[in-house]
Amino acid sequence: MSPVPAEAAKSTSDVVVDRKPFAIPGFLVNAVETGMRYRGRPDLALILCENPEGAACGGVFTKNLFEAAPVKISREHLKESGGRVGAVLINAGIANACTGLEGLVRAKRTARLLAERLRLRETSVLVASTGVIGNHIKVETIEARIPELLSNLSPDAWDLVARAIMTTDTRPKVACAEGEIDSSIIRVGGVAKGSGMIAPNMATMLAFICTDVSIEPDTLQEILSQVTDKTFNAITVDGDTSTNDTVLVLASCHPEGAVVGKDEPKKLEFFELLLEAVCRDLAIQIVEDGEGATKTVEIRVIGAPTRDAAMAVAKTVAQSPLVKTAIYGGDANWGRVVAAAGRAGVSFDPDRLSLYFDNLCVFKDGRPLDDEEVEKRATEIFSRPRFRICLDLAAGSEEATVWTCDLTHGYIDINARYRT
Amino acid sequence: MSPVPAEAAKSTSDVVVDRKPFAIPGFLVNAVETGMRYRGRPDLALILCENPEGAACGGVFTKNLFEAAPVKISREHLKESGGRVGAVLINAGIANACTGLEGLVRAKRTARLLAERLRLRETSVLVASTGVIGNHIKVETIEARIPELLSNLSPDAWDLVARAIMTTDTRPKVACAEGEIDSSIIRVGGVAKGSGMIAPNMATMLAFICTDVSIEPDTLQEILSQVTDKTFNAITVDGDTSTNDTVLVLASCHPEGAVVGKDEPKKLEFFELLLEAVCRDLAIQIVEDGEGATKTVEIRVIGAPTRDAAMAVAKTVAQSPLVKTAIYGGDANWGRVVAAAGRAGVSFDPDRLSLYFDNLCVFKDGRPLDDEEVEKRATEIFSRPRFRICLDLAAGSEEATVWTCDLTHGYIDINARYRT
Repeated sequence: MSPVPAEAAKSTSDVVVDRKPFAIPGFLVNAVETGMRYRGRPDLALILCENPEGAACGGVFTKNLFEAAPVKISREHLKESGGRVGAVLINAGIANACTGLEGLVRAKRTARLLAERLRLRETSVLVASTGVIGNHIKVETIEARIPELLSNLSPDAWDLVARAIMTTDTRPKVACAEGEIDSSIIRVGGVAKGSGMIAPNMATMLAFICTDVSIEPDTLQEILSQVTDKTFNAITVDGDTSTNDTVLVLASCHPEGAVVGKDEPKKLEFFELLLEAVCRDLAIQIVEDGEGATKTVEIRVIGAPTRDAAMAVAKTVAQSPLVKTAIYGGDANWGRVVAAAGRAGVSFDPDRLSLYFDNLCVFKDGRPLDDEEVEKRATEIFSRPRFRICLDLAAGSEEATVWTCDLTHGYIDINARYRT
Repeated sequence: MSPVPAEAAKSTSDVVVDRKPFAIPGFLVNAVETGMRYRGRPDLALILCENPEGAACGGVFTKNLFEAAPVKISREHLKESGGRVGAVLINAGIANACTGLEGLVRAKRTARLLAERLRLRETSVLVASTGVIGNHIKVETIEARIPELLSNLSPDAWDLVARAIMTTDTRPKVACAEGEIDSSIIRVGGVAKGSGMIAPNMATMLAFICTDVSIEPDTLQEILSQVTDKTFNAITVDGDTSTNDTVLVLASCHPEGAVVGKDEPKKLEFFELLLEAVCRDLAIQIVEDGEGATKTVEIRVIGAPTRDAAMAVAKTVAQSPLVKTAIYGGDANWGRVVAAAGRAGVSFDPDRLSLYFDNLCVFKDGRPLDDEEVEKRATEIFSRPRFRICLDLAAGSEEATVWTCDLTHGYIDINARYRT
């Protein structure tokens, strides 16, 4: 893959994203098996930044009131370190959520152990967990695996990391992109996990994205928040949010990488585009691997009075069980889509709403286009594994996009007897 | 059934509600088959008030922006008639929603035709429809059946009315209660339909409740709004609301009935209790008949800072697909319940939350009661067809109750290929 030239990338969609392992200058990674819950697979991953100053880091965490212990610790460390992070340690199988003070003590001890081994400040180590709520991680078990974890670090073992953080995921999720601006290359690559948007016993959304640019932590945090709103916060499998959700972006500030900052808005904008493209691809991979999902659908709302309004309508449609079952059944049921839009709590004139399935108009100015040919083509579109539902509210110029999947027998199978 | 004495009814639960046909002095009803969509079953129902002044009437309608034509007409007529209604005409099979100006004209013409036959003012006739969105009702077909509809009116054919308004419902829904206060009897009886909270092609929630009390329309409207919040607005099958949702309460102001008004708060309160008991029972019948449902669960939130907060937590838990699939699978998954509560947008201290399944405490002050015996008993409770999930937020003294059903393979079957 050759880097996308900045002048050829006007929007996120212009960025080519690869779903294969990569290497980002300044980062080493590895993963090992602890056996804490799983057998025969890695479940403890490490991302290490070689820069002695640490990577510049931005983080977005769950808004659930039940915040897991590792989320509390990482949030605090990120703040205390001024956004300078040397290492991130992630375990799968045990979430360390709803574990009280003892859970906090164990998460903190794990970070401290790793910091001591790496001669880092404790606050420059972040931790993340995913797995069963209510269970404690075993600090001694983790401690015993740290030497092996550190002995085989490699710049390109991202696929191993992606596999180590899986729970109910059926496949690892990796994405990377490269861009070129003013003769310097910007590299962005990341891994993610998530299947049910949450199944608090055994899912969670985690994503770790690395880049070689030099950037201030504050600027990176700002960009990540904007990008997350348009990517990881714009997907839904079942509308739930977990106790452990964590997205981190780490910039190694590598000498080979580009310098991006607020004094160079063009470069900063291009970096944001690349980051958004990678985050969007990882987010879509989560939806594609949604529990029981057989189809991925983009819900786009245009002509909205505000972006929040557009998002509210898009999310209501994306989360409607009736829309999601219609997608599963290949039933191009426009009535369910417009009725979901109508209850989103957004004010618009129903007599001006238009609805498109891919490029096919099925509903115009508040009325269905009742026509056998339209119905036939709409049904064909709903049989595809990927398509777009677009609503034009004709009430402004703001827009939003959300990705969703279908609600299937598979979802019920997975979730009805999860713990047994 | 003998009437509940007012002094023995301290709360709604003290009122005995019967699920059998009834008669309310002052009302005559009937239903016939039009064949507009169904064959071999009644699909056009009439509720007629014998009082020449009309019944005092209160109405609550859908908040969906896509308001069906009959909802628009009934809302307008209710206002223009000053809450005095002589007749209600209901058809099933065709919703007359998203039908534009022509839909409005047809709904209005139907009301006018019936008004002329009954020598009523047009605005004292209300109409309601449920069925396929986008299809028009046939005015001539309805007109042709009106003579038959009027020729066989009876005071106790409520079961026929309940069957005539069904769409995806698997059974008719009827409920009635009687109370005695100061030597006078208060009778309340009603019918409802609804299965998916909405399947905009073929469902909707409709409810019609009659009583013999004498009451001012304004007072009745006020009471209905309060009662609806605690009953019909406190149930969820799939979280959707339809284009046609309508709840009407009609009081015949019959000489035999009690006089209830604001100058007699004790009587008014007792009437409200009876009305709430009947509405709650009808609402629960809708949940019990929820699409694919096998279990009915009461979600109760106590210790909330405000009633709105309690309702928000209860609804978030009640609508969580992960909670609903756990109920289906008989998996007493407390983690899903607390995680849903934590993302409800309500501020409370997660370290003080307690959770009960029926009377069994499974989670106390933010921590699970991890114990084999608790787990065994919790699993037994989740195997029951009816049980209660109670969350104590320990953040105030307000409370709310919502009723929900499980999310099952049956729901997917019904909704994935609804129109085929």
